[in-house]
Amino acid sequence: MKNVLVIGAGRSSSSLIRYLLNQSVTDKFQVIVADMSLEMAKQKIAGHLNGEPIAFDVFNKDEREELIQKSDVIISMLPARFHHHVAEDCVRFKKHMVTASYVSKEIAALDEKAKEAGVLLLNEIGLDPGIDHMSAMHIIDRIHAKGGKLTAFKSFTGGLIAPESDNNPWNYKFTWNPRNVVLAGQGVAQFIRNNLYKYIPYHKLFDRTEPVNVLEYGEFEGYPNRDSLSYREVYGLEKIPTLFRGTLRRPGYSKAWNVFVQLGVTDDSYEIEDSEEMTYREFFNSFLRYDLTRTVEEKLAEYMGISEDSEIMNKLKWLGVFDDKKIGLKKATPAQILQQLLEEKWSLGPTDKDMIVMQHQFVYELDGNKHELHSSMGIIGHDQTYTAMAETVGLPVGIATKLILSGAITATGVKRPVEKNIYEPVLKELEENGIQFTEEQIS
Amino acid sequence: MKNVLVIGAGRSSSSLIRYLLNQSVTDKFQVIVADMSLEMAKQKIAGHLNGEPIAFDVFNKDEREELIQKSDVIISMLPARFHHHVAEDCVRFKKHMVTASYVSKEIAALDEKAKEAGVLLLNEIGLDPGIDHMSAMHIIDRIHAKGGKLTAFKSFTGGLIAPESDNNPWNYKFTWNPRNVVLAGQGVAQFIRNNLYKYIPYHKLFDRTEPVNVLEYGEFEGYPNRDSLSYREVYGLEKIPTLFRGTLRRPGYSKAWNVFVQLGVTDDSYEIEDSEEMTYREFFNSFLRYDLTRTVEEKLAEYMGISEDSEIMNKLKWLGVFDDKKIGLKKATPAQILQQLLEEKWSLGPTDKDMIVMQHQFVYELDGNKHELHSSMGIIGHDQTYTAMAETVGLPVGIATKLILSGAITATGVKRPVEKNIYEPVLKELEENGIQFTEEQIS
Repeated sequence: MKNVLVIGAGRSSSSLIRYLLNQSVTDKFQVIVADMSLEMAKQKIAGHLNGEPIAFDVFNKDEREELIQKSDVIISMLPARFHHHVAEDCVRFKKHMVTASYVSKEIAALDEKAKEAGVLLLNEIGLDPGIDHMSAMHIIDRIHAKGGKLTAFKSFTGGLIAPESDNNPWNYKFTWNPRNVVLAGQGVAQFIRNNLYKYIPYHKLFDRTEPVNVLEYGEFEGYPNRDSLSYREVYGLEKIPTLFRGTLRRPGYSKAWNVFVQLGVTDDSYEIEDSEEMTYREFFNSFLRYDLTRTVEEKLAEYMGISEDSEIMNKLKWLGVFDDKKIGLKKATPAQILQQLLEEKWSLGPTDKDMIVMQHQFVYELDGNKHELHSSMGIIGHDQTYTAMAETVGLPVGIATKLILSGAITATGVKRPVEKNIYEPVLKELEENGIQFTEEQIS
Repeated sequence: MKNVLVIGAGRSSSSLIRYLLNQSVTDKFQVIVADMSLEMAKQKIAGHLNGEPIAFDVFNKDEREELIQKSDVIISMLPARFHHHVAEDCVRFKKHMVTASYVSKEIAALDEKAKEAGVLLLNEIGLDPGIDHMSAMHIIDRIHAKGGKLTAFKSFTGGLIAPESDNNPWNYKFTWNPRNVVLAGQGVAQFIRNNLYKYIPYHKLFDRTEPVNVLEYGEFEGYPNRDSLSYREVYGLEKIPTLFRGTLRRPGYSKAWNVFVQLGVTDDSYEIEDSEEMTYREFFNSFLRYDLTRTVEEKLAEYMGISEDSEIMNKLKWLGVFDDKKIGLKKATPAQILQQLLEEKWSLGPTDKDMIVMQHQFVYELDGNKHELHSSMGIIGHDQTYTAMAETVGLPVGIATKLILSGAITATGVKRPVEKNIYEPVLKELEENGIQFTEEQIS
């Protein structure tokens, strides 16, 4: 019997491990789940006969080598910076590897060696990156095959709260790493529009959104991602005049979030003096002008050029921005203080479900006519274990692993799932598992 | 005869070396000038009998040790990151050292050893840091000695173009390192006002200036420096309710510079695609919304909320922001492109002179009354060698060195010139050399 090794049994591995265990019965393989915490590994396996939990330390070289040698495909769900330790062993022992993370420089450098060893190092096969690549390339290749010419590609993804659990004025809760949400967008957003490069600095990002409608999931707004330009090469669209990638939020979120950006409270680079003894109200006041004649509310409204009874101010009041409540965090950065405030209000309730939405917009010329096509997906989580995020990250990883094991995917070297022989069978099985895209021919 | 060793014979050493050579005749010492370039060292000495030029590499340990051993006081005018190599040798060979740079962690760590060796490592004795410390502490100590209590201390410094050479709409030219001017203020400005901490993010910095009047030198505006808070400890003002440090520009500069900050063109963290082939007009357009129906001028005026014939737009037009001129810089960051544009317009003409202005504002209570005192200085450069910057950096370094050599300064350990036994004799001789402060009792 063949062995699949899953390294890392955290939150994002639940759907992956369940899928693999289910498949293991018909496809006859073992699933070894290795984690620092044996308990976690056991929990995920839940007594399945084909599952084997193992306590594992990725930095223990002997242990790592032994485990990799007895496996056929290795899935690394570790934080991205640890993948290359596993990848190097995989090449050495001629084992395939699958990850949901971006191809790092260290991994990219293994391409030649992996090819020589006849080994596939498949990366970026989760949600974003992952499902975005596959669903986009599926249509890009089809348009090209028909003789069409792409002139614009825009792509939006959002990890949000499901409509049935959406009950706060921000229409947002933390369904994933809160810290990443607080720091999102820092740096500069780069994209190209009608052959003109466009750069948006962080402090203007949340002021430059565009409306996006996704199927029955409703209205969203997209703010630009940092790096759209590199996708030209990844998708073989080097000459495309317009390429834009964005992140989806519910309408009104970005204008309110922009208050935090404008104040500077998303900054994670320095510590606030006396943060422990300060109240949230004092914290926000420390980013506003000194003026004893006006309230913090008045000053903030003026700072942003909004009225005191505006929707934005209501969102801030609801969060507790103006409350005389002690922060109680020692030597905290502004971003850490903001995150704590948000976590009190944006945490998931016990029955809350998350949602993933994605939309690709293609503009292309075919037979002298201009066309626009949208391809969209929405997924609601089952519960707080099998979330939409865990499903959309874990299933493509699991499916690809199964297809490698069965010999249906035969590529070698360092890959992303942008090739037809990889994305086609994976998309097909994703669809069978309820993850499917709906196309709308706009024109 | 005793030896003074000056390491580094660059632009900022000219006034220093001239002062030392002049003093060497009456005080009977030798001045060894060591630089990578023997030519530079020779030039600065200009044939003076007490001067000895030496070609020198600070990383050549044997050479460095030999030179330090035969010297009595060592002045390091190297970039700040190299000082500690020299400082360690100084402690080992029991030699005093003088620099105009901030006390680094490495230097601070030598305090105990320096005291044991009976050696003085005197830092921050240039202009800013340097003259600012000494002139401020002179008044702070005086107010305290009278039984007064400081409630506010504000301090402003600017390196600018002299009024007689001020002939452009920005009232600014590069009189010092252009790169530092382009990147100035990045990070967050921190200060305290009436016991309330205040934080200003970079993108709001140039919108938060205050007017400052300096003697006969006229009107200026001050924008907040990054770190005012650390001066509380340095000046022994731990409990002061208000402490603010700022940088001076001529009125109107900051509002126009703010355009660059708002666009994001002072960013030095990424490269602009095709920067070599782009024009300045295209470069600035890449930070503005895509809109073929409007000109770059129209879009920029709208972006900033200003009219197209405003003073700000005139400053930008004068610089060439909207010109169809090729940039010609390969793989340049926005900040590098902006710097090149500015250098074409803000360079000093052959007869241009620079100017240094400084003002301290003290508010204090004495005998139940509230008082305000301003202490101000202005210096115009002689020419492009003996600039106001070179004079105000070099003379305090030179004077302190002479006083150490003569035994008038006897402190040991790692020091800043905030102690009376150091600042008093140095300020006195600065005054004899034309660098003096004028006090105005406002109330």
